[in-house]
Amino acid sequence: MSTTKNTQNGGVSVDRYDLHIGSDCNDEKTVVLGVDGGTTSTICVCMPLLHISNNHLPDPPPILGRAIAGCSNHNSVGETLARDTLEQVMMEALSKSGAKKSAVEAVCLGVSGVNHPNDQDRILNWLREIFPKHVKVYVQNDAVAALASGSMGKLHGCVLIAGTGSIAYGFSEDGKEARAAGGGPVLGDWGSGYGIAAQALTCVVRAHDGRGPQTMLTNCILKSLNLSSPDELIGWTYADPSWARIAALVPVVVSCAEDGDGVANQILNEAVQELAVTVKAVVHKLGLSGADNSGEFPIVLVGGVLTDNKNWDIGQKVVNTLIKTYPGAFPVRPKVEPAVGAALLACNFYMKEKEKNGVL
Amino acid sequence: MSTTKNTQNGGVSVDRYDLHIGSDCNDEKTVVLGVDGGTTSTICVCMPLLHISNNHLPDPPPILGRAIAGCSNHNSVGETLARDTLEQVMMEALSKSGAKKSAVEAVCLGVSGVNHPNDQDRILNWLREIFPKHVKVYVQNDAVAALASGSMGKLHGCVLIAGTGSIAYGFSEDGKEARAAGGGPVLGDWGSGYGIAAQALTCVVRAHDGRGPQTMLTNCILKSLNLSSPDELIGWTYADPSWARIAALVPVVVSCAEDGDGVANQILNEAVQELAVTVKAVVHKLGLSGADNSGEFPIVLVGGVLTDNKNWDIGQKVVNTLIKTYPGAFPVRPKVEPAVGAALLACNFYMKEKEKNGVL
Repeated sequence: MSTTKNTQNGGVSVDRYDLHIGSDCNDEKTVVLGVDGGTTSTICVCMPLLHISNNHLPDPPPILGRAIAGCSNHNSVGETLARDTLEQVMMEALSKSGAKKSAVEAVCLGVSGVNHPNDQDRILNWLREIFPKHVKVYVQNDAVAALASGSMGKLHGCVLIAGTGSIAYGFSEDGKEARAAGGGPVLGDWGSGYGIAAQALTCVVRAHDGRGPQTMLTNCILKSLNLSSPDELIGWTYADPSWARIAALVPVVVSCAEDGDGVANQILNEAVQELAVTVKAVVHKLGLSGADNSGEFPIVLVGGVLTDNKNWDIGQKVVNTLIKTYPGAFPVRPKVEPAVGAALLACNFYMKEKEKNGVL
Repeated sequence: MSTTKNTQNGGVSVDRYDLHIGSDCNDEKTVVLGVDGGTTSTICVCMPLLHISNNHLPDPPPILGRAIAGCSNHNSVGETLARDTLEQVMMEALSKSGAKKSAVEAVCLGVSGVNHPNDQDRILNWLREIFPKHVKVYVQNDAVAALASGSMGKLHGCVLIAGTGSIAYGFSEDGKEARAAGGGPVLGDWGSGYGIAAQALTCVVRAHDGRGPQTMLTNCILKSLNLSSPDELIGWTYADPSWARIAALVPVVVSCAEDGDGVANQILNEAVQELAVTVKAVVHKLGLSGADNSGEFPIVLVGGVLTDNKNWDIGQKVVNTLIKTYPGAFPVRPKVEPAVGAALLACNFYMKEKEKNGVL
């Protein structure tokens, strides 16, 4: 396999492969698309159709083309825009890879906002309108793609995502699935980046009006937002309802906690407990840890809240809490992005269907 | 004083007075405007310029005209629309009262979203552009008008508002003022209608995904929203970001608590504690209860969360909690609406300025 290395969007290393995927695949040009559709952005990668065995994947993974677009969560931007964004990002990734639409064998979308079979069906119908009939199309919650990014496309274990929002999603070996949290700010995703930052803002207001203890968060948050008084926070929160804008304050909270602030430490410790409870709900439902809780299973950690902090390491503290209950749980920090996870899922789903139908 | 009784907007009793306000007031036709500008609606009343002494006010109060418009919170609808709404509602109330703009002597606006002197100055400037120079104009947070509605325009004591949002606002006898909460949902007004209902929705999702105990709230809330599964709540909350739509679920929570549901009872008990803490922060800052906490002061209760429930009476439980700390505190449930409170404030502010200038 010879490669020519390019660097494309977002500084991500992109490899252009001459495809020799082996005897499983007769057509050298066949590709799959994997899409990670989050609340902030949508990423699509185009990869060759791989037969992944024994979790083996070339490092770096064979990404033929990669494209980025805006939000594709139909709950946030409406159906028409969500659909247009998805189509556009897939066509751009294909075009960058040099492959034609006719080369696509399978597409897997991991999209936030897929919370109900109705959501899944609607997006499947969009995909069936975009691609020829023979193309295999799969739609999952974006958490499933994130799990696959840590498990090389194998759906077993539990993923915990804590970025702007938070969700835990898991699969048992026999294909049962379960989720917890992932409802957004109104529905109390308190371990998320939004949850942590909203708690911090609340604590600043409480310290200011006498309901709560003084905290370093006041000066640090006001400074980072260029405001002069906590009274101005009300106007600031109203000015833009975006959760990502609130969640962007997480590093300030972590920094105050590292400097020993009691309020900031309490917020982060509560977030750790909340995230651990979220994973436990999924593990319990699926019986992932076995009858005596000692069974081995991966916990895939994804999202800035879990991965960006070196000193006050939220992800590590969640793992430490979980391992007390589940000594066989082991953390996985994915080396590839969720869009690649979605592409690997596309390969695996495709191969499984072909095997089932006796084609391979 | 002869009256002709009409019934106007909202079924409110409206009286048309031949004004004989006594020797304090030379011009029989002089009027004041009082405005209550909330997040849901804006109400303006036109009243004769009264000299209120010894908390004496005709019952029912002499309302000459009353008008209702939409939201005038500049944080929610932007400055232009907020200003237009305020001007429109004042002109409509004037027109209904049969008085001319030139008859207006004083205007008091109690507007939500006034959280900073800058907000106050901006709205004062709008009023100065709308009315002739001699008209006295006053701008306050809407909580101040609500306090005045319970105290006949005297600014002493603490008001607690819990409707869609929540806030406590108080004045000491010597004119110091303080507030607590009132920051909206991001900033943690957890005792508010929004806070109670958002907690209830969160508990339904937690019960569904295994993070929390089962609760009657699940069936009752799904039934009231005509949904078939808790998974559908995510789409429902995203579909419309209005807090009032969430807060409208409070009666369902109260009903489940009355039926003995543990989760609903815990939510309401926590709301009671949260609201009591909010009042305590204001009482403490102003020293309203005196050195030994036994001083007498009114706690004015306003808003559907505090006043609409007969069995599980949130307002009464807040008062019971507060009286344990402040035996001299006494609850006041206003008989007039906050817009009338604003009009009474306009009268009082005007008379005080005239007295100060030696005119009266």
